Amino acid sequence: VAVIGEIRAGRFAITAEDQDVHLAVERVLTERLGDLGRKVHTARSRNDQVAVDLRLVARERLADCMEAAAELALSLLVFGRRHACLPMVGRTHLQPAMPSSVGVWASAYAESLWDDLRLMHAVFELNDVCPLGSAAGYGVPLRTDRRMTARLLGFARPHANVMHASNARGKCEAAILGVLAQAMLTLSRMAEDLVLFGMPEFDYFELPAAFCTGSSIMPQKRNPDVLELVRAKAARVAADGAVVQEIVRALPGGYSRDLQETKAPFLEGMQTTVASLRVMRRLVEGVRPKPASLRRGFSAGVFATDRALELVVGGMPFRGAYDEVKRTLPALAATDVDGAVIRRFGPGGTAAVDWGAIRRGVTLEKGFARGRRRAYHRKVSDLLGVRYPALGGR
Amino acid sequence: VAVIGEIRAGRFAITAEDQDVHLAVERVLTERLGDLGRKVHTARSRNDQVAVDLRLVARERLADCMEAAAELALSLLVFGRRHACLPMVGRTHLQPAMPSSVGVWASAYAESLWDDLRLMHAVFELNDVCPLGSAAGYGVPLRTDRRMTARLLGFARPHANVMHASNARGKCEAAILGVLAQAMLTLSRMAEDLVLFGMPEFDYFELPAAFCTGSSIMPQKRNPDVLELVRAKAARVAADGAVVQEIVRALPGGYSRDLQETKAPFLEGMQTTVASLRVMRRLVEGVRPKPASLRRGFSAGVFATDRALELVVGGMPFRGAYDEVKRTLPALAATDVDGAVIRRFGPGGTAAVDWGAIRRGVTLEKGFARGRRRAYHRKVSDLLGVRYPALGGR
Amino acid sequence: VAVIGEIRAGRFAITAEDQDVHLAVERVLTERLGDLGRKVHTARSRNDQVAVDLRLVARERLADCMEAAAELALSLLVFGRRHACLPMVGRTHLQPAMPSSVGVWASAYAESLWDDLRLMHAVFELNDVCPLGSAAGYGVPLRTDRRMTARLLGFARPHANVMHASNARGKCEAAILGVLAQAMLTLSRMAEDLVLFGMPEFDYFELPAAFCTGSSIMPQKRNPDVLELVRAKAARVAADGAVVQEIVRALPGGYSRDLQETKAPFLEGMQTTVASLRVMRRLVEGVRPKPASLRRGFSAGVFATDRALELVVGGMPFRGAYDEVKRTLPALAATDVDGAVIRRFGPGGTAAVDWGAIRRGVTLEKGFARGRRRAYHRKVSDLLGVRYPALGGR
Amino acid sequence: VAVIGEIRAGRFAITAEDQDVHLAVERVLTERLGDLGRKVHTARSRNDQVAVDLRLVARERLADCMEAAAELALSLLVFGRRHACLPMVGRTHLQPAMPSSVGVWASAYAESLWDDLRLMHAVFELNDVCPLGSAAGYGVPLRTDRRMTARLLGFARPHANVMHASNARGKCEAAILGVLAQAMLTLSRMAEDLVLFGMPEFDYFELPAAFCTGSSIMPQKRNPDVLELVRAKAARVAADGAVVQEIVRALPGGYSRDLQETKAPFLEGMQTTVASLRVMRRLVEGVRPKPASLRRGFSAGVFATDRALELVVGGMPFRGAYDEVKRTLPALAATDVDGAVIRRFGPGGTAAVDWGAIRRGVTLEKGFARGRRRAYHRKVSDLLGVRYPALGGR
Repeated sequence: VAVIGEIRAGRFAITAEDQDVHLAVERVLTERLGDLGRKVHTARSRNDQVAVDLRLVARERLADCMEAAAELALSLLVFGRRHACLPMVGRTHLQPAMPSSVGVWASAYAESLWDDLRLMHAVFELNDVCPLGSAAGYGVPLRTDRRMTARLLGFARPHANVMHASNARGKCEAAILGVLAQAMLTLSRMAEDLVLFGMPEFDYFELPAAFCTGSSIMPQKRNPDVLELVRAKAARVAADGAVVQEIVRALPGGYSRDLQETKAPFLEGMQTTVASLRVMRRLVEGVRPKPASLRRGFSAGVFATDRALELVVGGMPFRGAYDEVKRTLPALAATDVDGAVIRRFGPGGTAAVDWGAIRRGVTLEKGFARGRRRAYHRKVSDLLGVRYPALGGR
Repeated sequence: VAVIGEIRAGRFAITAEDQDVHLAVERVLTERLGDLGRKVHTARSRNDQVAVDLRLVARERLADCMEAAAELALSLLVFGRRHACLPMVGRTHLQPAMPSSVGVWASAYAESLWDDLRLMHAVFELNDVCPLGSAAGYGVPLRTDRRMTARLLGFARPHANVMHASNARGKCEAAILGVLAQAMLTLSRMAEDLVLFGMPEFDYFELPAAFCTGSSIMPQKRNPDVLELVRAKAARVAADGAVVQEIVRALPGGYSRDLQETKAPFLEGMQTTVASLRVMRRLVEGVRPKPASLRRGFSAGVFATDRALELVVGGMPFRGAYDEVKRTLPALAATDVDGAVIRRFGPGGTAAVDWGAIRRGVTLEKGFARGRRRAYHRKVSDLLGVRYPALGGR
Repeated sequence: VAVIGEIRAGRFAITAEDQDVHLAVERVLTERLGDLGRKVHTARSRNDQVAVDLRLVARERLADCMEAAAELALSLLVFGRRHACLPMVGRTHLQPAMPSSVGVWASAYAESLWDDLRLMHAVFELNDVCPLGSAAGYGVPLRTDRRMTARLLGFARPHANVMHASNARGKCEAAILGVLAQAMLTLSRMAEDLVLFGMPEFDYFELPAAFCTGSSIMPQKRNPDVLELVRAKAARVAADGAVVQEIVRALPGGYSRDLQETKAPFLEGMQTTVASLRVMRRLVEGVRPKPASLRRGFSAGVFATDRALELVVGGMPFRGAYDEVKRTLPALAATDVDGAVIRRFGPGGTAAVDWGAIRRGVTLEKGFARGRRRAYHRKVSDLLGVRYPALGGR
Repeated sequence: VAVIGEIRAGRFAITAEDQDVHLAVERVLTERLGDLGRKVHTARSRNDQVAVDLRLVARERLADCMEAAAELALSLLVFGRRHACLPMVGRTHLQPAMPSSVGVWASAYAESLWDDLRLMHAVFELNDVCPLGSAAGYGVPLRTDRRMTARLLGFARPHANVMHASNARGKCEAAILGVLAQAMLTLSRMAEDLVLFGMPEFDYFELPAAFCTGSSIMPQKRNPDVLELVRAKAARVAADGAVVQEIVRALPGGYSRDLQETKAPFLEGMQTTVASLRVMRRLVEGVRPKPASLRRGFSAGVFATDRALELVVGGMPFRGAYDEVKRTLPALAATDVDGAVIRRFGPGGTAAVDWGAIRRGVTLEKGFARGRRRAYHRKVSDLLGVRYPALGGR
């Protein structure tokens, strides 16, 4: 079973007949290993082959997702940095509450994507285990070297238990979809904000024309269709994960055909997430804040808390400060909006955003995805003797 | 702001009036820091306090879950090792398909829990970020040292963005529940197996009496109530995660009261998972396989694939081997079940289970949970000057 | 078995010892029927008793829901009628699109509730079937008259098949919760509208103070907490239905203990829906539209379509009318908002709302619920010989 | 607007250019009504046209579902009647519990489908309301006769409120999918039973070969793939309903583009349900019970309850009867299985199944679907002047 050297020397391209990477791998193995190759083929089941395929597709798609999420986060940081002190009222319960800025808003979603990237990293590693050799879930009556086949395909290791290699089908997909749904949550809320604050009553942002549909007769009408679709797609990806999870929950151990129904939502969920992340990046790079509208959102009450705190710092007791502010609230309407925002979020401000930490974190995860992708592409290229074709990669 | 030393010297116990850890922390901060303490209090919102509370509870509960999952996995390994070569037919589509063993079955679920532990590890770290100082989501107009308060409470770091600290509410809970639902999937399938193979037509296992309800008049009837409840609880934890996710998906950025509705499913989901993991461990430690019943599950067909492969290895071509096996199938009924299972799964067998890898992986994760728990307990004890009381811990 | 007369003559009150209606019924039966009574008791299982209990509770709660939904709808009609021609811009994609009115808005939700009432009516009848006598799902070896017991308890009929009487558990609950989730959808969208248009940028409605939380320092801040909670509760009721459905989906025929887990979400879902409907009614009765703010929402573009159509009706060809409107759009800013709305929605307008149809439909459903409730209360009172106590009724 | 007569006289076929019924209707209207027709077109929005399309498709598909469900139920009744007294052990917690029969089992699912049909009937009527004329949700500034257009298209009535006609999109689909998920629950549990009792340890039924996949080498292996897929499809239809519901829950009133995402799950859910109902009918018509295997499932304990009751009826007190049965349990092993089953479920038995009630109920619903379909086909044929082509009908 120690013919790794010979395999590495292989020079066979993937032909049309092979249909997919997996069959090419098998053909190469069979051709190179002769009798033993055929035996491996004999003892193998469609089950572990499909399981391997799903993990091959998943790692490629997860790398896509991680790169797309990282790039969107970095775009948000660039956008946010540029508008770090551009006033945008901070809301709770959708009611204006505190001074905030476009930069705070944008970098909040960048950090949210960082969180999502950390979870994607975790499921990438969960997925990075090779089920090959588990056959129909009970292994084969031969001493195959599952560690070697895992390594050849660029996986971190094989499954420790052949039955789990089979049981993990569906379960691993559900875990991945659960994490992608998290990324969609980030997009959904960002989209919701942009839809809301795109109403003419706010008019905070000008969306790129390509992302809106208009009306031939109402020139002021710009329907944020793409954002609405992203919002709805978030519900879809969540449902994709839920259906996979439920199919698995009801199953006993060992393969059941129910698992076939997990494939469509799995592939759809991954595809939708990559596409949504990419489209939102293009949107972020094209969106333009409208300073005048943004400043209009600041009413006197927004400054009340800050003012009270100022008085407290100046020595006035709580109760008194509050009463004072309440009494003089109209006066706060004259507050210099930009000044107040700069005091809070400008250099020397309250450190409300640690830009560097987010950028470093996001960049690290992007590097992880790139590095892993490069490594397993090299492994598979070595195995097949041809440059590894990306599975629907970028 | 460098009064850490003084705080560490504090000797204040948590009194009944404090109600929860968080208020005790605040009281200590206020008492120790005087004016500055009061200012921090002033500038703070119920929002970030609740957010901190949820993360404090979550890390304690996640550590509970990780320890309980690890212990269940280790119990399964002990149980599996003891019955490594006890025949148990391997099924696909619930139909008998291949020789397998009780050991393969039990360790498959141990590896499944290892997967779950890796995900719990990831959400533990996701949760290990401190929202304190984000106030209502837009920070406070003071240069608070959020890094310090995070460290004092035993968190890895504070949120990089104050608005994200608020936006992450619900989202982080959904991620945690999603992972706990994964652990419940493992339990649900294990329970399903035990319910099925507990039917008298199989009678593979004798469940501990405490886990069954009987009937006063039908002594043979042992209803596996606890297993059925665990199976249903898996659906519940999945729904807990789904509802939190959906509440968040529909929200714009910034705090909305909808988030209050995430608390009940969050706490319930964590509590249910810990309890289910613990009860399943007690069950595994009490379950007794019934060798005679287990062997009865092996019909001639179960050995067909192995026999065909044997002939192939002996030099016979595929087609011929298959036809030969098909023709002589009845003869396979005389196969020595134990012998066949030992040949596959005994020492010198096919390495279908890497016991050491699972044990090492699980132990590592258990160590992680213990280490982190010890570390933040110490931090909080230092902060409060009293031994940190476990939040409903073990 | 023809001792109905004697039973009807019974004069036994429900005592504290009985705990629930069901035990009282049983006690009465036993006491009245002597030996035969005891035999019925013997042959019966906890299973069909719980199944009956759930249907007794469900019909009471469904009647509550129907009355509450009808009353909310009628309140919306009163409110809508009063403000039938009060301008409120009609939106698509949240962008102002067409002239509309507060009356159109309110009666839209009234008709939505009418739809919900029709579905509640359907599940009320689905639920109106009596499982008593099915015992553990296979009946009893006696010729019990299930038709009679169904009638005595005020049900339309018994289950036709004893096994289905058992299988329907969970399934019937899921159907009911699915319909209640529909009513919650209506409330959720109405709440979403009120939250959005409660932002100071719109300020369309003044919510009753009791439904908001304020801020001691920001007098202008009115957080619509109740509406946010209703919105989140809609997600919860949907999840309640989903979990019951999933528990049932995974089960084989015949009772399994998993069904116990359907009770909590079932009761919770019904309770939440009744409460939400009632609280929204009180809100609707207290809300006050603000005409000035409402009129401000009308920009020139809102009248564009109407104006173009006017020109077309006047004989101008399509293309020309559109270009004309586009060119003269600013002039439309001077449109008399109230006049335009009255022309559309006033008497002699476009019949955009058929007030009478909604009121008649809703009133019919309310009458159905009342009638049924009165009828089965009478039946049970007759059976027990005491006035039937409402189960948590109004 | 009273040109109905002329329209009825129309003789225009649907051409390829029309693409769908809706455009044909519009073309006919325009051609027939000249200026007024063009005006109707002008004032209309894609929104209400799509809304009408969805309702046209839904009523056709719902009629399909109702007929398919009714036919499956009738097939189950025929099958059950034939095997009314063929012993099949009744289980609770999957443990053998009581005597039952194949007839009881089959007719239980027939009654379950009757329940489903009643709900389908309700959503058919919910769907039977015409949104045409609501335009973008706020009507048109013309006195259109929405009642007439509704009647012409074969709907019961138009929406009473134009905004609700728009708001009902997604909501109505969710209600329909929720009901279809109920039918899938019935199929899922039936499938689960057949998968379980198809294990060789039971071998209760022989499935038609076309519904199974085998193994070339293991002739005894018959994988119930179709049943497993139906079981998984039930999870899918539930998820289809959930995603539509969630998309709607998060929306404000008025059209949003999110609703586009409800179409795919809606059409898929309806298609899947029709197909599953039809495939299960073919399976039921081909399945053959195996009497010997079925009888083997009866152990002594199954008769214990009946025997105890017999003693009680004979005058022995409870406690004594139970003890007696317990002591003499082994003797019950000699019980005549067929005799016991016939005594219970044969003519003169315990009336465990009211065959006539189920058949009448199911037939009534089938008649309803047929009648409604015929009626609206006639209406549309009259309108278009051509025989109405079924939308993917049978």
